[in-house]
Amino acid sequence: MPSIFSKIVAGEIPSYKIAEDDRFYAFLDINPIQPGHTLVIPKREVDYIFDLSEEESGALFMFAHRIAIAIRQVVPCKRVGVAVLGMEVPHAHIHLIPLTHERDLDFSKPRCSIASDTFQKLALQIAQALNP
Amino acid sequence: MPSIFSKIVAGEIPSYKIAEDDRFYAFLDINPIQPGHTLVIPKREVDYIFDLSEEESGALFMFAHRIAIAIRQVVPCKRVGVAVLGMEVPHAHIHLIPLTHERDLDFSKPRCSIASDTFQKLALQIAQALNP
Repeated sequence: MPSIFSKIVAGEIPSYKIAEDDRFYAFLDINPIQPGHTLVIPKREVDYIFDLSEEESGALFMFAHRIAIAIRQVVPCKRVGVAVLGMEVPHAHIHLIPLTHERDLDFSKPRCSIASDTFQKLALQIAQALNP
Repeated sequence: MPSIFSKIVAGEIPSYKIAEDDRFYAFLDINPIQPGHTLVIPKREVDYIFDLSEEESGALFMFAHRIAIAIRQVVPCKRVGVAVLGMEVPHAHIHLIPLTHERDLDFSKPRCSIASDTFQKLALQIAQALNP
């Protein structure tokens, strides 16, 4: 059975998409730790990130790098932090999280509640910053 | 003034080194969240990871990928997690942290106290797993 992320990539489940290419896909986390919290995934369904090939893993991070720069242009923050935990959904994903304080990267925090049109606007702004 | 990490790379400050190549350096965090907690850095002193070039950032992650595989061969854990916060030391670094539970990646936790000879043994074992 495909993962929830594979269903997002296939368009079977909607997402606030920021970008995709032939191998990777980026979209807003719907339970964000901070507004602008983004997930970057390989389209190929691999559970553990370090089971990707070294080349794929490097290319995924380069893709995430471009997204992180765009996030910081749109979302007020000091930096964009990175986290890979890999125990929630069995499909490798990089969290990109706008940070103002070190403590902002805390997965035990209550998540932000964001309206659908705000999500949509944010995804569009980040996508536009990516491809000006 | 060079960062504490540049001093480590230069050998002016000792470290429990795991690996290095011409561009990157990996060593055990001396205030680990979990035993085996490793820092992976570019030798070039850049504060914010996404101020590296896209190519450097991808190559850094590929280097970290190899280290993460070696850590998991040595340290009992389910996975190796990844974090980049970037607000502690002004020299980009990737945290690789052995995880058994999602909550193991928590920078507010008290750090582990590890004896110097245990650190040395751990660094050596991970280095050996990297180059069998």
